[in-house]
Amino acid sequence: SSGIINSVDEFNEAVSNAQPGDVITLANGVWENAELLFEGNGTEDNPITLTVEEKGKVTLEGNSNLRLAGSYLVVEGLVFKNGFTPTTEVISFKKDKNTLANHSRITECVIDRYNNPERHEPDTWVAVYGNNNRVDHNHLVGKGNRGVTMIVRLNTKESEKNNNRIDHNYFGHRPNLGSNGGETLRIGTSHYSLVNSMTVVESNYFDRCNGEHEIISNKSYNNVYRDNVFYECTGTLTMRHGNETLVEGNVFIGNNKPSTGGIRVINGQQTVRNNYGVGLKGYRFRGAFVVMNGVPNSPLNRYFQVEDAEIHNNTFIECDHIQLCAGSDAERSAVPINSSMTNNIFYNPDKNDVFTVYDDISGIDFKNNLLSPNISAISENGFTARELEFEVNKYGLKIPKKLEGNQGAVLSDKLATKENTGVSWYPKDDIEVELSSGKTIVVSPGLNTLFDAAKNSKPGDILELENGTYTQTKTLAVGHPLTIKSKNSQKPTILFEKKSLFEISNGGSLSLEDLIFDGAESPDRTGNSVITTSKYSMNKNYKLFIEDCEFTNLDVNHSYDAIRVYKNTFADTISIKNSKFKTISGNVIALDKETDDIGIYNSEYVIMKNNVFSHVGGAALRLHRGGKDESTFGPFLEMDHCVFDNVGNDKRNKYDASVSLYGVQVIDIKNNIFNASKGVGMHLVVGEPIVNILNNNFFNSASISVTGDEKYTIRNSWSLPPAFD
Amino acid sequence: SSGIINSVDEFNEAVSNAQPGDVITLANGVWENAELLFEGNGTEDNPITLTVEEKGKVTLEGNSNLRLAGSYLVVEGLVFKNGFTPTTEVISFKKDKNTLANHSRITECVIDRYNNPERHEPDTWVAVYGNNNRVDHNHLVGKGNRGVTMIVRLNTKESEKNNNRIDHNYFGHRPNLGSNGGETLRIGTSHYSLVNSMTVVESNYFDRCNGEHEIISNKSYNNVYRDNVFYECTGTLTMRHGNETLVEGNVFIGNNKPSTGGIRVINGQQTVRNNYGVGLKGYRFRGAFVVMNGVPNSPLNRYFQVEDAEIHNNTFIECDHIQLCAGSDAERSAVPINSSMTNNIFYNPDKNDVFTVYDDISGIDFKNNLLSPNISAISENGFTARELEFEVNKYGLKIPKKLEGNQGAVLSDKLATKENTGVSWYPKDDIEVELSSGKTIVVSPGLNTLFDAAKNSKPGDILELENGTYTQTKTLAVGHPLTIKSKNSQKPTILFEKKSLFEISNGGSLSLEDLIFDGAESPDRTGNSVITTSKYSMNKNYKLFIEDCEFTNLDVNHSYDAIRVYKNTFADTISIKNSKFKTISGNVIALDKETDDIGIYNSEYVIMKNNVFSHVGGAALRLHRGGKDESTFGPFLEMDHCVFDNVGNDKRNKYDASVSLYGVQVIDIKNNIFNASKGVGMHLVVGEPIVNILNNNFFNSASISVTGDEKYTIRNSWSLPPAFD
Ligand SMILES: [Ca+2]
Ligand SMILES: [Ca+2]
Repeated sequence: SSGIINSVDEFNEAVSNAQPGDVITLANGVWENAELLFEGNGTEDNPITLTVEEKGKVTLEGNSNLRLAGSYLVVEGLVFKNGFTPTTEVISFKKDKNTLANHSRITECVIDRYNNPERHEPDTWVAVYGNNNRVDHNHLVGKGNRGVTMIVRLNTKESEKNNNRIDHNYFGHRPNLGSNGGETLRIGTSHYSLVNSMTVVESNYFDRCNGEHEIISNKSYNNVYRDNVFYECTGTLTMRHGNETLVEGNVFIGNNKPSTGGIRVINGQQTVRNNYGVGLKGYRFRGAFVVMNGVPNSPLNRYFQVEDAEIHNNTFIECDHIQLCAGSDAERSAVPINSSMTNNIFYNPDKNDVFTVYDDISGIDFKNNLLSPNISAISENGFTARELEFEVNKYGLKIPKKLEGNQGAVLSDKLATKENTGVSWYPKDDIEVELSSGKTIVVSPGLNTLFDAAKNSKPGDILELENGTYTQTKTLAVGHPLTIKSKNSQKPTILFEKKSLFEISNGGSLSLEDLIFDGAESPDRTGNSVITTSKYSMNKNYKLFIEDCEFTNLDVNHSYDAIRVYKNTFADTISIKNSKFKTISGNVIALDKETDDIGIYNSEYVIMKNNVFSHVGGAALRLHRGGKDESTFGPFLEMDHCVFDNVGNDKRNKYDASVSLYGVQVIDIKNNIFNASKGVGMHLVVGEPIVNILNNNFFNSASISVTGDEKYTIRNSWSLPPAFD
Repeated sequence: SSGIINSVDEFNEAVSNAQPGDVITLANGVWENAELLFEGNGTEDNPITLTVEEKGKVTLEGNSNLRLAGSYLVVEGLVFKNGFTPTTEVISFKKDKNTLANHSRITECVIDRYNNPERHEPDTWVAVYGNNNRVDHNHLVGKGNRGVTMIVRLNTKESEKNNNRIDHNYFGHRPNLGSNGGETLRIGTSHYSLVNSMTVVESNYFDRCNGEHEIISNKSYNNVYRDNVFYECTGTLTMRHGNETLVEGNVFIGNNKPSTGGIRVINGQQTVRNNYGVGLKGYRFRGAFVVMNGVPNSPLNRYFQVEDAEIHNNTFIECDHIQLCAGSDAERSAVPINSSMTNNIFYNPDKNDVFTVYDDISGIDFKNNLLSPNISAISENGFTARELEFEVNKYGLKIPKKLEGNQGAVLSDKLATKENTGVSWYPKDDIEVELSSGKTIVVSPGLNTLFDAAKNSKPGDILELENGTYTQTKTLAVGHPLTIKSKNSQKPTILFEKKSLFEISNGGSLSLEDLIFDGAESPDRTGNSVITTSKYSMNKNYKLFIEDCEFTNLDVNHSYDAIRVYKNTFADTISIKNSKFKTISGNVIALDKETDDIGIYNSEYVIMKNNVFSHVGGAALRLHRGGKDESTFGPFLEMDHCVFDNVGNDKRNKYDASVSLYGVQVIDIKNNIFNASKGVGMHLVVGEPIVNILNNNFFNSASISVTGDEKYTIRNSWSLPPAFD
């Protein structure tokens, strides 16, 4: 039968009557809370098809999802948005654990920011079970909550040797989750990692898939990754578990963005050939190319030793980190063996120490690899240094001109592009609005004038405040990017009567310039703050910029913080520059609300430059990342030219420091002055953090205390009387 | 001018043009997000009036509020509901701190559960500033978030000697907040407690105002509390700060409910006369009548010594606790002086030890007081014991027949009643639906049949499950009272694939009977639970009853709890009886999410009787109340006839106990058996907890460890081999 379906009841009836060759067509419109079970058996020549009246005009919203069960089923043209799945999967190739779909296909479907509002509530967008299934030309963008975007599961026999094919999908921007569980594609789990999977992943486009440090997590045998493009993705294609993977012809374009990586090799019999990387800046497990150490007699969920790896004809241009024997430690002591690296190019005229060798590399046979002349070879034989000439190929990539030694990658005609992946009828443009990209609105002093202006603003708008005093009796909800600044050279003063002046809610970002925040009218209660995040989960990351501002009189009662964040919120960047914080009973900012200690934290980048903190009872900064997980990048801290004058001395300062850091991955603290203040406390664990503490003056103050077992550099700590004006 | 107003703009225009005698009338309908500023000056004979087209048909909803400023203003007939104030006050007698309202009146207004969704975000419903104002015949019911319901503020000179009058208001049910900040009426603050206030509070009806242990918190000089009725209110009328208070003619009806109290005396020159209490069961600071010790040279925010107190002609019938020198400790060492207790009646044939004397009472002169014969007098003179005869007065109160000694209270004709307070046009009925008060719905086994039945249920409904297996792929949101039980004698089995089976959301309560909860199909992740509260704030209290149930196979991964609660949620009761908990990797229940340690906790009553806990990695119970605040009642724990077999031994059990208690106020643990388990840990602090640990058997287990500085009783601890079948 055919005909247009208008309700879930009609759909169920059509499905139960469906014969091979039938086409079930969903009517245009919004399908709210539609849980579709598409169960049936077509034939190879006559599948049963679920399609839509017009592509792009049928959306499944609210708590909708789709399950497939049976064989020779085709689904095309569905769009999931404005909601999230009520179960743990949006599109599932199973009805229940015993009833899977085989020989079926999902094509030209869209899943767009279909996110559980709970950031750390896990779900999966596309879960592939069964065999001989194809997932192609789909558009998956903006997963904001925890859970792998697409997964191939191997829990039962029926899913082994599956010949599944994942191709020509557009994996759009996935923001940094700040936690494990942000992978874009995973095949298998550690538990089933010895299973022969035989899935082919080819010609997919990964566009800024930045959820965590595994873009792809391979966890089974005999999979193929071919002709995929990774555009500005942080992390790597990781052969986490399982042997005999073929990784060939993939392209990694870093554009010099931090934490962009390439390929990470673990386990036995891995082949990595003909891949190309450019401008990849990631370090350690996020390197352009990484070969890890294994664990002797590793349990399933740890690291198997690298053996029989064949790594040849790969090209890495202007990539910063090639990491060999990475992760070497007391547990991961099994070095790579019986492996070869042949005909590869490592070319980076701007960086001499591209290679880091963490352990014995005698188990890797190096042959005929080519280096830029500035790079020092890591073994006597197997490397040649020379200048290269480049040309730009049809994909816009910088490629060495043909070499007589046959080094480097030759790319395929089947390479993914933004155009040949996903669907033509759904835009791939960026959705996010930038701060200060909107119109400018002038605001006059008075009661709640700022509140009203903020409430009426549009995303990206700039509120320019005239000279004077602004009193707010209400909390300003910042639900979109908003900039507030002084119109003139004089700083306006903002007073407020609620517990918080600003609440950054989901989707919000805030930039403040040239303003004075005065807490004199705050309620006489504990726990006030000038800026707070939502108390609820935020599944969108936010940004906070503060420049040339003053925060003062935050002391009507104890525990008054300048900025307060909550659990299940995550900032891409918190930047505070050229600002003064004076007379504060609590902390300037404590980024320590992820207390489960499973590798989650509250902000990726924290930047504090040229600030003065004076008479602050609590800490100027607490930054916490607990747990042993190694899946994330940050947090990163840059602290430069700050003055701490009588900071941290209140009895309630539980950190016992002016700056208290726990598990921070990159620490750069230099040119700061501490007077009559608590010092810097650092607990250094996990992930080989990069720690540089340089040129700081601790006068009449505690200085630096370090715990944990990682390396660090402290140089030029002084104790000279500072001359404040 | 006159005429009906249809918008806030019209209102603003009418207000700006208003002349003495004008009446501004709001049109019938819902006023959404209406922030009304009613500013003007009427005259004594010709006030400006804000009224409504028809009483009960004008509601202010969303984020609405009202400010008054000027003089001789009258507001009548407004109803605030379905929302909460965007500022810190709903009705405020000020425009800003310099512009107050005087000679003004709020009458016949209603505020009904107009609560911020954030339980601990504070606000006030009626804030009285200025002088000669009257607040009368209002109906205020169901405040669920933190903050005093009505407050008289004395921040400026203009509010001193204010002659404000608060009368004939109906203060409806206020649920237990489980925290300080749940007062129903407060006059002054500690900071302004030496101010002469002169507010009269008379003929108000307080109906189960149970927010915290201060129903009224008097914090200034020279106020009068007269002819008010307190019906089943937990807590007391407390003279917290300020002298020269007159408390007379008030009636306290406890109906033998726990924690119901009467009057608490602190500070100098307090007069307490002619008050009547019956059936009051509260203990310590919640006693029927309490005289506290003070702090020598007390700071403003602590306890001034009681001196010159005149306590006469009060009647206490069937009240359990008269507390003298209450709170006596190292800090509160100043005993009452120069005080008298005369002509009072303390009559309770069922309790002999009605009086508790914590310190030296020689500073109180006892004269002509009357006791029931069973009660032992606390001083040689001043007490006479005799049997009394009673009659029922026109208010339905049990009153001693006229006595020749003139002891006891004589009540006024102006006493508040439920009828003569509040408004006639708004119902005073209870709103809450009870568990199991609805219809019965039979549910058959299958995929998501229980989910669907729960989703379609109405408040109070009972789902009866037929024999069989119920698999849920979705989490059941419990947003109203819901009962789920077995239809037959055999227990149905419930399996579930999401992180939690049940989520109790705001407004929900859950009763489970005769069911098996099997975690075998739970996702292989950490942190599952069978039952969870909302992760978000709940401003309504919930109840959870579990009877004759089994919880099993909760161990797919670590940290799987049977029940998990979140911060900013509060249970009136969690009761678990005749149930089995077997093979659980996490805790049965950890009520420890209020980590700010400011006297907040997660459940008032916890009852565990006749349960078996076996192979539980974490604790069977953690119950935490941190901080030094003394404003609340619980938590209360009753644990009887439970078996603990291999409980608490997982390395992740951070409590290092099977039962871990911190700051619990009443602990009753008896007749339990512990085998190969961690023991009972108790930290006893704050509030003179009542602790009885009797007849427990600890075999091959840790037993009881106690820290803290409070008294407790442990008797009959055994260590005998148990005979389990
Ligand atoms: Ca991962
Ligand atoms: Ca209180």
